[in-house]
Amino acid sequence: MPKQNKQQNKVNDAGKTRGTPARQNGQDVRRPREAARPADRRVKKQSAARPAAVPKKGKPQGKIRIIPLGGLGEIGKNLTVIEYENDMIAVDCGLAFPDEDLLGVDLVIPDTTYIEENQHRLRGIFLTHGHEDHIGGIPYLLRTVDTAVYGTPLTLGILKNKLTEFTLPFAPQLRTVQAGQTVQAGALSVEFIHVNHSIADACCLCIHTPLGDLLHTGDFKLDITPIDGAMMDVTRLGELGRQGVLLLMCESTNAERPGFTPSEKKVGQSLEYIFTANPKKRIVVATFSSNVHRVQQIIDISARHKRKVAITGRSMLNIVGAAVELGYMKVPEGVLIDIADIKRYRPDQLTLVTTGSQGEPMSALYRMAYSDHNQVTLGRDDLVVLSSSAIPGNEKLVGRVINELARNGVEVLHDAALSVHVSGHACQEELKLMQALTRPRYFMPVHGESRHLAANRELALEMGMADRDIFVSQIGRVLEIDAKGARFAGTVPAGQVLVDGLGVGDVGSAVLRDRRHLSQDGLIVVVAGVDTESAHVLSGPDIISRGFVYERDNEPLMEEARRVVQRSMDACLTSDPRDRMRLKNTVRDDLSRFLFNRTGRKPMILPVIMDV
Amino acid sequence: MPKQNKQQNKVNDAGKTRGTPARQNGQDVRRPREAARPADRRVKKQSAARPAAVPKKGKPQGKIRIIPLGGLGEIGKNLTVIEYENDMIAVDCGLAFPDEDLLGVDLVIPDTTYIEENQHRLRGIFLTHGHEDHIGGIPYLLRTVDTAVYGTPLTLGILKNKLTEFTLPFAPQLRTVQAGQTVQAGALSVEFIHVNHSIADACCLCIHTPLGDLLHTGDFKLDITPIDGAMMDVTRLGELGRQGVLLLMCESTNAERPGFTPSEKKVGQSLEYIFTANPKKRIVVATFSSNVHRVQQIIDISARHKRKVAITGRSMLNIVGAAVELGYMKVPEGVLIDIADIKRYRPDQLTLVTTGSQGEPMSALYRMAYSDHNQVTLGRDDLVVLSSSAIPGNEKLVGRVINELARNGVEVLHDAALSVHVSGHACQEELKLMQALTRPRYFMPVHGESRHLAANRELALEMGMADRDIFVSQIGRVLEIDAKGARFAGTVPAGQVLVDGLGVGDVGSAVLRDRRHLSQDGLIVVVAGVDTESAHVLSGPDIISRGFVYERDNEPLMEEARRVVQRSMDACLTSDPRDRMRLKNTVRDDLSRFLFNRTGRKPMILPVIMDV
Repeated sequence: MPKQNKQQNKVNDAGKTRGTPARQNGQDVRRPREAARPADRRVKKQSAARPAAVPKKGKPQGKIRIIPLGGLGEIGKNLTVIEYENDMIAVDCGLAFPDEDLLGVDLVIPDTTYIEENQHRLRGIFLTHGHEDHIGGIPYLLRTVDTAVYGTPLTLGILKNKLTEFTLPFAPQLRTVQAGQTVQAGALSVEFIHVNHSIADACCLCIHTPLGDLLHTGDFKLDITPIDGAMMDVTRLGELGRQGVLLLMCESTNAERPGFTPSEKKVGQSLEYIFTANPKKRIVVATFSSNVHRVQQIIDISARHKRKVAITGRSMLNIVGAAVELGYMKVPEGVLIDIADIKRYRPDQLTLVTTGSQGEPMSALYRMAYSDHNQVTLGRDDLVVLSSSAIPGNEKLVGRVINELARNGVEVLHDAALSVHVSGHACQEELKLMQALTRPRYFMPVHGESRHLAANRELALEMGMADRDIFVSQIGRVLEIDAKGARFAGTVPAGQVLVDGLGVGDVGSAVLRDRRHLSQDGLIVVVAGVDTESAHVLSGPDIISRGFVYERDNEPLMEEARRVVQRSMDACLTSDPRDRMRLKNTVRDDLSRFLFNRTGRKPMILPVIMDV
Repeated sequence: MPKQNKQQNKVNDAGKTRGTPARQNGQDVRRPREAARPADRRVKKQSAARPAAVPKKGKPQGKIRIIPLGGLGEIGKNLTVIEYENDMIAVDCGLAFPDEDLLGVDLVIPDTTYIEENQHRLRGIFLTHGHEDHIGGIPYLLRTVDTAVYGTPLTLGILKNKLTEFTLPFAPQLRTVQAGQTVQAGALSVEFIHVNHSIADACCLCIHTPLGDLLHTGDFKLDITPIDGAMMDVTRLGELGRQGVLLLMCESTNAERPGFTPSEKKVGQSLEYIFTANPKKRIVVATFSSNVHRVQQIIDISARHKRKVAITGRSMLNIVGAAVELGYMKVPEGVLIDIADIKRYRPDQLTLVTTGSQGEPMSALYRMAYSDHNQVTLGRDDLVVLSSSAIPGNEKLVGRVINELARNGVEVLHDAALSVHVSGHACQEELKLMQALTRPRYFMPVHGESRHLAANRELALEMGMADRDIFVSQIGRVLEIDAKGARFAGTVPAGQVLVDGLGVGDVGSAVLRDRRHLSQDGLIVVVAGVDTESAHVLSGPDIISRGFVYERDNEPLMEEARRVVQRSMDACLTSDPRDRMRLKNTVRDDLSRFLFNRTGRKPMILPVIMDV
């Protein structure tokens, strides 16, 4: 069982894979574990980068550069570049879901120009866990950058699944790492340390450098009673913190929330109660497909209640498949059934596990709610549990599904008070615990909107850090650390790249501005043919409208508009028969004014004038 | 002081304005208070409606019809029609804010066809309070229906202000009513009963009918320590409940929330604490402009802390102006200053009260956050308090403002845990209290999405009502009550009318479908001139795109697209030189297929073929 292997690995290999920080020449500089490898190789590398960097008096002269390329000032598309001289690694490469003002955009990925331009120095991408906002940008980056990707088995299992949807120029180099192991990356070495999160097999990363240790938490929480039995590796974090890490990069998602995030086990208790209280109903649980432990709990509880479990929703089937195959889930014999077979069981013999907890249109739950699912029709015999919380921006979508279910008499449990969901992110006390364990010299809040970064900064101040040692940064901004200290030092290109259909980066502000204009007031196309010789309107003007007003019901308005254009063209052609640009502008201005006076709206107007 | 008058009115006029329910001929039918007026007039009215309705054996033979035209299955545009034979009244007439899929739509109002077609029977519109979702539709209804509008002084003050923006064919008949008073409306009489809510001067309505009392709660909460000293008139509700009301129509907004809604005074305590803890900072409080009591508390606390108060935001200035004028707010001498004068004071001497608590673009707070406000620039000396909660759908907008403030180092307090906001709506225990007081024979949950109506139904079941006596309805559905009982009886036209700019109802599903299409993938216009004789393409084809792809960066794609169209046209014109419809369809299909293969997108394609 890989899961057990992982545990053994953590215990047995600890001595082999973990470095022991050591004082060097009386300086508070921790020697990286890879100091064992040939010094010449290391010096050679450093020389290649900057000849002046040959160590003097044992005190490393090199510079660390921390460059967040995503995840700061935003939720999603997490990507941090870490460099020590000539060696560079990336931590995660995620995607973000578009805000509603990015009309028609499917995904947002980070601008990776900096990595592409420096890929000769890239020693690999290191993944903290398998969520989209941490791995979703990988397939796009791998189109131009051929590098190794390191992650735990489940993380890579999910990524592999994802990569099948893309055609890449190189065979992806996916390298499995177990929590507790360390990977060499030039002068850097990256240690994977187990944390709890809403997906199995999540890690934080300790990047050992000649100047000291950098700790990137990824996403984490402290779960004292986790489903897989492995609490966050507090001990290892404490070991690293004995001399204090040089820089702590700590996630900020829940930095505004006081207290501790409850254990995943709390959800199991709530579900147990719900199953017991509803022995007659079919129970449908919607949750995040990647929450392997949640699904495990639902299966276990169902088995105890003598229910069969059917899974529906493509991503849920994919991830559960991978998790079972890799040993992250244990399914009791005979409990899982195919969704096509549910008609052979009574409602009280069934649990359905489904995607769609965010109310996504066309997700399995959405289709069930709107009576558009092939196998499942919901009614008074059903209890739907939304074991999830709405991601900000999705509240309305989730609300719609709940309303549709309520309308059909389906009982829905979703209240936060019922504890049918817990967050995967550390709340304030856990964030402070991370600080207390790792005792950082410098602190950079990551993974959050400005409000979250500001709140995480407040926590660091509360823990006694000096304001000057806290670096609230933004994407593209370089934090430089050397033996003298830490400081911001310039910027590199950073931003968002919009993915729309197959297009990556071909939708920009001009296109979005047009989409917004069209979405608000629609479009008018004015078509006319002009005789080049006589400067008379030969055909038209005709007016075509889309998204402005229903033409058939508004013929008088459209007819008036036509006359406005006619007058406008006549006047223009008389005074200046050749200037087509002026003609178009005049038509646009006159018609726009007329329509605004009559309707209060400003549709986009496209004059098409053809010289005949 | 009008406010004091109101109180006196309630106490002194109680005997005069309140009817005493009385058993009639041993039947559990409560005689309306207006039974004192000449019986012949009443009979005459009934005869006019239906000659058969002359009372027999003292038992009223008439029918009550309850017709919700808005506010069920949705939040907003509340409107309920209540009829007894030939007499009809409307309770409220509000607007709703559009869901994001109603692209470009400004407002949604109820379809009032039924009222318009029956306006000869309409005896008036009765307003429960002055919120937009209860009065916002009035100006639109008054364009075609000339009727009296009854409401409390503040409600009508706000409505009057609103009506100045409209040109109406009739002079509006606004009739002021004090809580505790009753208004005759044909065979019906409407009693205004004081309730607590997030706006002053809110009432529920008891509609006395020959068959019994109908109670419409409007929006309410029970505030035991309200700012204006007047708790919801529990006593009067209890009096009505002695024999039990015939039908309770109860709001459902917070029907999913357990417990009691905290008192408005709780917010004052929190603000007091915040003011005390931040003696050096300028304090900016954003809240709902209509929450007169909230603003009163902010002014009082500021005065105690020796701060001047400046108000900014058009709607806030309007409503505070009306509230002060009508005596609903008391401003201590010398506390209010003009926003233009704030530069004469230090930060610690100032409180700003502003609109924009929903993150509305161009609201005062939004402009402050984005450094676009004429008088106010926010920075490290400022503390912003969002004394509000985000209305569902506005979370992202509110979040953006908070982030922008955080980015600029402004401290923001918004956490629910701080109690800087309380709801204006009854939670579960208050909803049950309303049932316990009024002891309804029948129950209809109103004012809520399906989920809220379903939750309110659960509460009624919990209170011991029989399922068959609970009517979960929808807009347009008629509930009929007569001496024999209550039942659904058919439907009337109902729905949503979209307001876009000056257009009312001219945006429908076809226009919205086009806007959605345009917003997602943009537009391609194909322009070509065809020689009618030779059936050859004379000019073009040219391709214009908007919102699809940035043309300048994608010239090769556009050039290829042009060639696809050229081939398509050539083939079509050769095989069938005359059929323009077929030509357009072929061009559209071929180009659409080409673009989808290349970009994964399906822009709207408009072929413009001109015969030359």
